[in-house]
Amino acid sequence: MAKLLIHSSFFKHNLDLISSHIGSKDKLALVLKDNAYGHGIKEIAKLAKEYGIKNVFVKNEQEALQIHNDFEHITALYGNISPQSPLNICQTIHSLESLRSFSAQRKIELKFNTGMNRNGLEPNQVQEAIELILKNNLSLFGVFSHNGYGDDGGEKMQQQHQKSQEIKEHITHLSKTLGFPLPRFHFLSSSGALRQDKIDEDLVRVGIAAYGYLCTSIPIAKDLKPIASLWAHQISSRILEAGERLGYSGAGIMPSKEIISTYDLGYGDGLFRINEHHQQITCANGEKILPRMSMDCFSCLSNQKEICVFKNAWPWAEKFDTTPYEILVKLSPFIPRELV
Amino acid sequence: MAKLLIHSSFFKHNLDLISSHIGSKDKLALVLKDNAYGHGIKEIAKLAKEYGIKNVFVKNEQEALQIHNDFEHITALYGNISPQSPLNICQTIHSLESLRSFSAQRKIELKFNTGMNRNGLEPNQVQEAIELILKNNLSLFGVFSHNGYGDDGGEKMQQQHQKSQEIKEHITHLSKTLGFPLPRFHFLSSSGALRQDKIDEDLVRVGIAAYGYLCTSIPIAKDLKPIASLWAHQISSRILEAGERLGYSGAGIMPSKEIISTYDLGYGDGLFRINEHHQQITCANGEKILPRMSMDCFSCLSNQKEICVFKNAWPWAEKFDTTPYEILVKLSPFIPRELV
Repeated sequence: MAKLLIHSSFFKHNLDLISSHIGSKDKLALVLKDNAYGHGIKEIAKLAKEYGIKNVFVKNEQEALQIHNDFEHITALYGNISPQSPLNICQTIHSLESLRSFSAQRKIELKFNTGMNRNGLEPNQVQEAIELILKNNLSLFGVFSHNGYGDDGGEKMQQQHQKSQEIKEHITHLSKTLGFPLPRFHFLSSSGALRQDKIDEDLVRVGIAAYGYLCTSIPIAKDLKPIASLWAHQISSRILEAGERLGYSGAGIMPSKEIISTYDLGYGDGLFRINEHHQQITCANGEKILPRMSMDCFSCLSNQKEICVFKNAWPWAEKFDTTPYEILVKLSPFIPRELV
Repeated sequence: MAKLLIHSSFFKHNLDLISSHIGSKDKLALVLKDNAYGHGIKEIAKLAKEYGIKNVFVKNEQEALQIHNDFEHITALYGNISPQSPLNICQTIHSLESLRSFSAQRKIELKFNTGMNRNGLEPNQVQEAIELILKNNLSLFGVFSHNGYGDDGGEKMQQQHQKSQEIKEHITHLSKTLGFPLPRFHFLSSSGALRQDKIDEDLVRVGIAAYGYLCTSIPIAKDLKPIASLWAHQISSRILEAGERLGYSGAGIMPSKEIISTYDLGYGDGLFRINEHHQQITCANGEKILPRMSMDCFSCLSNQKEICVFKNAWPWAEKFDTTPYEILVKLSPFIPRELV
């Protein structure tokens, strides 16, 4: 059966590298959203807990409930949290409108838009947001934003970072003058944090770097190790002559007389569907995959019982004009994950 | 919250159309594999049962166990079935090798390769397979193949169909001479079946057509209705000036001063990640989506609380050089499915 192996030592290696850079293990918060970027939320939560991680970020309540016993604080980045859910699950507030309608006795984190223009309150809404929180007796646990230029660096990243610092100063000032507890602040994620020499925030939210990737060329990127390798199992094999065709519409053409095998992973399992328009795509050790991929299987010039499809998502990302994030996150949650 | 609406009346419409073409409701077997091609296996199973479907095909044991109470016969197309699983779950055998090692008291279906060269036994292995089955006292329930040229039609499809008929004749002959019960035969899936004027087989395995699509231009294709519409929920909105940028690396550029909203579906939910290299992609009613899509959300020129992302997967399939199958099957199983 196909499986995704999670290499625990590589995960620890990445976390060591990142916490050494940010100067503290305690400031390291892990992003476990979207099934831990496709790696398996329960399996990665287990490793993160063992490592000593206390704070994590997930997509929504459904994910938070799977791992709420493993961490002190779990923030759901999207959606509402039901009243009966454990109180260590914090809800993210993205707009004044949703803040106005929020009345639960549950900790909240305010998300601000510092220039990515995607989600969050505007910086000029700080005062009104804080007044609403005090008036409605809400519990402000955290304040954060997401820098849309972390991978790019440069002036635009700095402009966003500057805005986030102004929000922090404004809220710190209001905390003193209005007498409410200072929330935690976290404005940096993987590449933003790893670009900074000094981390002033309470936390950094590390996602993709923990899984061994960065979509930028900062020096630390080359020292990260992709933690997952994807394996498929042979369903059947046969010898075909040079020029024989296989797959839908006979789109795959045998380059020579060879053994070809079919393996139990397809685009229904989250792989990208290889067709005859794509450049040659191979498995991890160079075994050629022939188009077209089926929903449940692919055919490959190999006779191995188990084949490593990839141990690094970059080549697939490049062939499909996307990022390793998308290659990994689309892996079906039904593929068994195995910690090794 | 995002949701996938399943339009029950469209599903019934498609099944009526298909069973009318094949001349019998009893011959209609439904393919529910890969979470019912992304539509939600439990929800579609419920509708299929209500319609009177008795035979279904799923990906593997995990899927079969979710719906085994709803149908008389469930065939898992891939993988092994545990001894303790219900006996109305049949296992598919893809090779002589796996037939040799099979010993369970469970019904099997033999899959043959009739020219797609992907999976299954070879036609010249019929005799040996039957001898093994009789020697080991196995229960042969069905014999099938998959025609890789169903969407193309023409000579190659006919050649494959001819091979499948020869397998049927050979096994029918052996059944008489060796005295074992005749298995059921099914060699046709959606487009293959809908091209034939007369169906000689015991069953046809209908997948994509039931969901409202065909990747071919045969006349019935235009009468099918896509049964799913995908909806997203607004997270936040803001007014941006013409030329303002949004999303990662500021890749989205506002065409004019407008309200832009962010909605709770992203490439982590199975949508394809729209970047700045893709041609303009819109939601169902023409609302422009700006690059780059995030893992958990997309930004769109709209202020609707709920937006219909698509009610037909074809436009997305065409933009991403793929088929509606891939667009649909990649929709995360965690998006709630709702029967309407």
